[in-house]
Amino acid sequence: MEDKERIDDIGFANLRLIQKPEDFCYGIDAVLLSSFAQVRKLSKVIDLGTGTGIIPIILTHKSEAQEIIGVEVQEDSYQRGLRNITLNNLNQKVRLIHLDVKEIAGENIPEDLNQVLKQGRFDTVISNPPYMKRDGGLKNNLQAKTIARHETTAILADFIKAASWLLKDNGDFFMVHRPDRLVDISVLCRQNNLEPKKIRLVSPNKDKKPNIILIHCVKYGKPELRFLDPLFVYDQKGHYTQEIMEIYERV
Amino acid sequence: MEDKERIDDIGFANLRLIQKPEDFCYGIDAVLLSSFAQVRKLSKVIDLGTGTGIIPIILTHKSEAQEIIGVEVQEDSYQRGLRNITLNNLNQKVRLIHLDVKEIAGENIPEDLNQVLKQGRFDTVISNPPYMKRDGGLKNNLQAKTIARHETTAILADFIKAASWLLKDNGDFFMVHRPDRLVDISVLCRQNNLEPKKIRLVSPNKDKKPNIILIHCVKYGKPELRFLDPLFVYDQKGHYTQEIMEIYERV
Repeated sequence: MEDKERIDDIGFANLRLIQKPEDFCYGIDAVLLSSFAQVRKLSKVIDLGTGTGIIPIILTHKSEAQEIIGVEVQEDSYQRGLRNITLNNLNQKVRLIHLDVKEIAGENIPEDLNQVLKQGRFDTVISNPPYMKRDGGLKNNLQAKTIARHETTAILADFIKAASWLLKDNGDFFMVHRPDRLVDISVLCRQNNLEPKKIRLVSPNKDKKPNIILIHCVKYGKPELRFLDPLFVYDQKGHYTQEIMEIYERV
Repeated sequence: MEDKERIDDIGFANLRLIQKPEDFCYGIDAVLLSSFAQVRKLSKVIDLGTGTGIIPIILTHKSEAQEIIGVEVQEDSYQRGLRNITLNNLNQKVRLIHLDVKEIAGENIPEDLNQVLKQGRFDTVISNPPYMKRDGGLKNNLQAKTIARHETTAILADFIKAASWLLKDNGDFFMVHRPDRLVDISVLCRQNNLEPKKIRLVSPNKDKKPNIILIHCVKYGKPELRFLDPLFVYDQKGHYTQEIMEIYERV
């Protein structure tokens, strides 16, 4: 354990995670995405922007994937991710790769990775990409806002491009994001042959507008979008809904 | 009145509509769209695919627009629309045009219409376009389904292209559609410089997924999408919600 770190229970299956709260802690988004993603038995799965490895770690429990890889660019998160894999005795099941997602799908991919990150090698790509530019939120003037916008769109484009490149035809892409990026996501996915098939909107409760979007695309899928039933996190009394309890395996 | 027609109260402001139920009756979609659309005082408004004129008729009551035009391709609906305008004494306020929306934005526009349907002339475009191909629903085999899909996408593309062509810069486009077309709508709108700014999802009640989508785009707007609070049609007891009652002016 390093300074200012702590170990948290993920909430089910005795899985634990070393986190550094002042840096970043995983949110419910990653947990919802891990549950939303339907990972087939013996499939090859990759998580883009894995942070400290939360999604691969949950998937070792929730799926019977053959191979689970996480890719993370930030050195700190990557190192903490490595320790998380060891902490949970998952070194045989999960591999973390220290790489910028935008290096994938290019000619620049490091030679030692060009077999494992080969085009069309994966059945499933999962991603909870950064919602904002990394070095801070939006600043309060128009120009900074526009720049930030372009940067986050560039990040989103890199992630979607990489997802498409890694997936085999008919492979699945599962992503969590903010509803206000839905138009960007739709346009970028279609540009990259990832056809949105299912959207699930998540709201804090039945009276609130959605603040999380779960989206499932299929590479070269036919255009046929379906909205799933909305998911509500809290009930009228402010407790977790039954479905959230099931996702956290507390029932 | 012609055979098999009837006169219905629209539900507010003593407005009435001649309809032919076996043909088509307007739905709640048109009413919700008329309420969702923020039409500025003295603005020029056009409704694409106006059917029997329901939206222009409601807008004479709900807005202070300077000019309201409706465009409809189907002869029957157009003729019934003309009689509806007369029935409600709105000949000074509403003009209906018998034209295929796909003729707009082209070189083929009839000469007598090229002043009124001039590029960039409108502040607001409204549309409740046909959701399916006109001569029937989807047939139960894949090929027919694919053809229907292409045809409805072509219709949607024609409507969005016409909307963009008619609007002045920063003009507003308000459309109602089905949530399962959201990706098509997003891609087509952005291709035509209509940036989606607000989305409102409408569900039958709080437990059901959305089945109607209201979308507001701004021509050459900055990308900045916002999801509004969801709109529910019925409450837990199966009665109209307060908001629907307000839209129908029954409170």
